[in-house]
Amino acid sequence: MTVARQATRSATISVLVENESGVLARVIGLFAGRGYNIDSLTVAAVDQEGRSRINVVTSGTEMVINQIKAQLDRLVPVYRVADLSRQGPHLARELALVKVVGAGPERAEALGLADAFRARVIDATNTSLVFELTGGTEKLDAFIELMRPIGLAEVSRSGIAAIARGPGTL
Amino acid sequence: MTVARQATRSATISVLVENESGVLARVIGLFAGRGYNIDSLTVAAVDQEGRSRINVVTSGTEMVINQIKAQLDRLVPVYRVADLSRQGPHLARELALVKVVGAGPERAEALGLADAFRARVIDATNTSLVFELTGGTEKLDAFIELMRPIGLAEVSRSGIAAIARGPGTL
Repeated sequence: MTVARQATRSATISVLVENESGVLARVIGLFAGRGYNIDSLTVAAVDQEGRSRINVVTSGTEMVINQIKAQLDRLVPVYRVADLSRQGPHLARELALVKVVGAGPERAEALGLADAFRARVIDATNTSLVFELTGGTEKLDAFIELMRPIGLAEVSRSGIAAIARGPGTL
Repeated sequence: MTVARQATRSATISVLVENESGVLARVIGLFAGRGYNIDSLTVAAVDQEGRSRINVVTSGTEMVINQIKAQLDRLVPVYRVADLSRQGPHLARELALVKVVGAGPERAEALGLADAFRARVIDATNTSLVFELTGGTEKLDAFIELMRPIGLAEVSRSGIAAIARGPGTL
């Protein structure tokens, strides 16, 4: 007997929570405890009423993603859970800080490529540059791969912040 | 007897870890279990060898921050822990996606302010705009507060990605 392998997909899930001690640990514990994958996670306070928004990019079969959503919905103090990748078009953007070390022609090449990617120089010494770059994950990956042979020294990335297109809100 | 109250400070801690299941949960569990505050957290894969970098902004007394560092250092599989706020100058940048709903003069006002903050329009409908903005936490807070009376509808922020200035690496 053959069993069809279920297709996996990537899901971008936004969770609005009360910004209290331990809630992030509970959300992440839910993923870790069940072996669910976290590809990216960002969290920040988003209003004056003390609420935070957690953006998680995960992947799994449709069934696993539905389980994740249902379990997040049951967590306290979670106000709202939305699978942005299933609710119409959404925007997903990431920030990267990329350090390149070198001098001479490598430096000029790095600056030229940065210009093409609309990356901004936010620190410069005689031997180093730090670029700030935003975009989708693939754009950031491509820039970092281009910098690797030129003198890539260090990368610090934020992970995905996501929001629905249009006037609708969570 | 009076006891001097110990001064608290903000610390930006970068942690380089093996990108394996559960490591993020262990790092965050360390903070939650001891009641340490997490003001911001970002995590993303940073190299081809499967390592991830976690940036945590926390606050506490010097003693608490040193405890956090020591405990992170003892976690497996942590390669490296650095308190960027104590190792010379560093850069801390955040990404925000900000949705503003409205039409007429409010819309023009939002676009004008966005220009002043170098925010980019990444989505527009007849009744809504989504801005992408990067900068320090205070700049992002200021922009969001300006948008509030104009028609702030939704905010999604990444939290802080941080890196040392100059050629040095973690």
